[in-house]
Amino acid sequence: MKAHIITIGDEILIGQTLNTNAAYIGEKLIGIQVNVSKTSVVGDDHDDIMNEFKNTWAKNDLVVVTGGLGPTHDDITKNCIVKFFKTELIQNDDVLEDIKRIFQKRGREVRKVNESQALVPKNSEVIRNELGTAPGIWIEKEGKIFIAMPGVPYEMHAMMDSFVIPKLKEKLVDLPTIQKQVTLETTGIPESFLFERLGNISELLDGAKLAFLPSPIGVRLRITVTEKTEEDTLNKLSEIEQKIRSKAGRFIFGRDGEKLEEVVGRILHDRALKIAVAESCTGGYLSNLITHVSGSSNYFERGVIAYSNASKVEILKVDEDTISEYGSVSLEVAKQMAEGIKSISGTDLGMSVTGIMGPTGATESKPIGLVYIGLCDENICLAKKFIFGEERYINKQRTSQAALEMLRRHLLGISLDD
Amino acid sequence: MKAHIITIGDEILIGQTLNTNAAYIGEKLIGIQVNVSKTSVVGDDHDDIMNEFKNTWAKNDLVVVTGGLGPTHDDITKNCIVKFFKTELIQNDDVLEDIKRIFQKRGREVRKVNESQALVPKNSEVIRNELGTAPGIWIEKEGKIFIAMPGVPYEMHAMMDSFVIPKLKEKLVDLPTIQKQVTLETTGIPESFLFERLGNISELLDGAKLAFLPSPIGVRLRITVTEKTEEDTLNKLSEIEQKIRSKAGRFIFGRDGEKLEEVVGRILHDRALKIAVAESCTGGYLSNLITHVSGSSNYFERGVIAYSNASKVEILKVDEDTISEYGSVSLEVAKQMAEGIKSISGTDLGMSVTGIMGPTGATESKPIGLVYIGLCDENICLAKKFIFGEERYINKQRTSQAALEMLRRHLLGISLDD
Repeated sequence: MKAHIITIGDEILIGQTLNTNAAYIGEKLIGIQVNVSKTSVVGDDHDDIMNEFKNTWAKNDLVVVTGGLGPTHDDITKNCIVKFFKTELIQNDDVLEDIKRIFQKRGREVRKVNESQALVPKNSEVIRNELGTAPGIWIEKEGKIFIAMPGVPYEMHAMMDSFVIPKLKEKLVDLPTIQKQVTLETTGIPESFLFERLGNISELLDGAKLAFLPSPIGVRLRITVTEKTEEDTLNKLSEIEQKIRSKAGRFIFGRDGEKLEEVVGRILHDRALKIAVAESCTGGYLSNLITHVSGSSNYFERGVIAYSNASKVEILKVDEDTISEYGSVSLEVAKQMAEGIKSISGTDLGMSVTGIMGPTGATESKPIGLVYIGLCDENICLAKKFIFGEERYINKQRTSQAALEMLRRHLLGISLDD
Repeated sequence: MKAHIITIGDEILIGQTLNTNAAYIGEKLIGIQVNVSKTSVVGDDHDDIMNEFKNTWAKNDLVVVTGGLGPTHDDITKNCIVKFFKTELIQNDDVLEDIKRIFQKRGREVRKVNESQALVPKNSEVIRNELGTAPGIWIEKEGKIFIAMPGVPYEMHAMMDSFVIPKLKEKLVDLPTIQKQVTLETTGIPESFLFERLGNISELLDGAKLAFLPSPIGVRLRITVTEKTEEDTLNKLSEIEQKIRSKAGRFIFGRDGEKLEEVVGRILHDRALKIAVAESCTGGYLSNLITHVSGSSNYFERGVIAYSNASKVEILKVDEDTISEYGSVSLEVAKQMAEGIKSISGTDLGMSVTGIMGPTGATESKPIGLVYIGLCDENICLAKKFIFGEERYINKQRTSQAALEMLRRHLLGISLDD
């Protein structure tokens, strides 16, 4: 089944709203092996919408539309659908009841514009909206399917999960092949080095697909396998994963969207270890990442953002002479910060970062992007030097990711070398 | 000038990566009055890419492409461009130098796959990449423009800002009407309340357009005015902005994408005030926001992430009895945390947050989303209660935004009431 996703809305075109809807629908459709070969965005414009309906309906088995189903003047999707399928609007009593119920719950009276939302195209099936007033629309014609849903993300998600995907699944029977994907999450190695490490790619893959997805904090490796049976597919996926792990294992920290802070958090939690963090240049980014994980209060004891030298000395007990001699961005200060935060917190581990994030703060001997990360446990206190780039925000991200990776490798006894 | 934006990459189609690139390019092009009527996403597939080039090149004056310019096997955009424009690849020495410089800086050797990135289509102009190895490509043919840039967002952003937009601007002369937009940034008021406050919208706008763009941390109001001359456009924009300010002024903290942490940072900087922050539930999010602003080390002295009660007592000198009596999520503890961080840091201002972000941690009397924010200066120490929602990450965002807004209003002498 070949599908096209259309997102309607000026706010998406002009970049004021990110197109999370197309991403959500794409992911769900791929999950049931619908072939999404293209998606598009058009504004709230009658001609543009009609053209897009015409072009995509001609070339696909399934067209999924979101947006423009609201009650106000700039919501014109429903009228375009009626015109495109040469039909008319009729009132749907179930939808009217849904709308009345929602308004009652909010303690408000139903307005005329909301009542008009109960009008749906004749010969369409209604997708009930439990969370809002705009119903979804399902039309089958010429052996093809047309689906329209409101653009409010959580309303659309509910419709996809409870109605659209189950109903599409029924129609997708006896697929000739089974396709599955695994994504391996790597960090600390550039894309081209990872590529080289994997050696002969086509030999490694033997017909499967591999995509490299780089970001400032790592490269994701997405493996896609298509075989005749589920068992064959899973076996081959696992075989390729093992081969990749044998070549680049220490750079792989997780699978399928796992975050490094989740992986590290799980290790700390499982071993009942507590950590405290002293940050300078990252200004809270690292602690914020760690505490994004629900349950992190079990292992994250405290953090100190020692931006000023005074705070490094007063709270973390860094030696003033060390700062004068080596500067606050130095291996020595990173070590003392990690030792200090561990000692004042009474935790098993202390971690520190100090560096120059830019755009200002560089000196002749210390460029923007220079970072030292320190790590202490009961037995050892070490620090490592990194050189990142020019962009302040990306430097914060990369520094924090490198710190978490240093911690992960230390906890798992993996070499800290590149 | 009519434009189409193509994003290339399976990861976008299947929803693994959000299409931030199309949003960024759309926003920048609209900003110089290029008419973006449609955007599309295609996978890393030769035929799909070639078809999309063909269709969009026929219908537009400008085609902007991102993605698929990396060094690995699944990056096929460059070869498609060569084929589409019936040209060939030649080596560009400037690009080769750029690549070597980047690797040298990172202390790594250039790989063969990277050297091949210095090959560019003949008769194209190269868009230099300061932050990565893939150059951008600018082709002019048949009075039209074709631009390809790498998909790594910050590399593409730099190319757009320093090369693409300035060069396009030169080509856009003598437009019949002038369209301009202003976006007012509000926080602390729900969309429907803001809508009600503005009263009769069509009277207010008199032919201009107004869009409400809600997010968890505020509602953005985008005003669009199109008039015959630049002067008329600017006058009308300013008139509407003033009217809106007269009705909802205290909720408006900035314009055109300004962030609240930038606005607050500017006030602190201008008044030479220093602040220190004590966070519990936000786990570093608030300090991280403040330190995202370059130059924040001039006014941000330190932060403490007092996750454990011990750290609240030991570092911030919160009274143990107060915690026992009122709980660590309380108005009293928020005040003491703000007082404590101000006192140990010797700053002009101390700010604190304590709350329950979820999904766990709620008690019968203290629900998820309950937050207290404290603020002390030389004269006054106050705290305020908030109730946010159920989502941990959104709660961190909303809490930090509310803290910054409380600080902004306090500094400007604006009432803290809703």
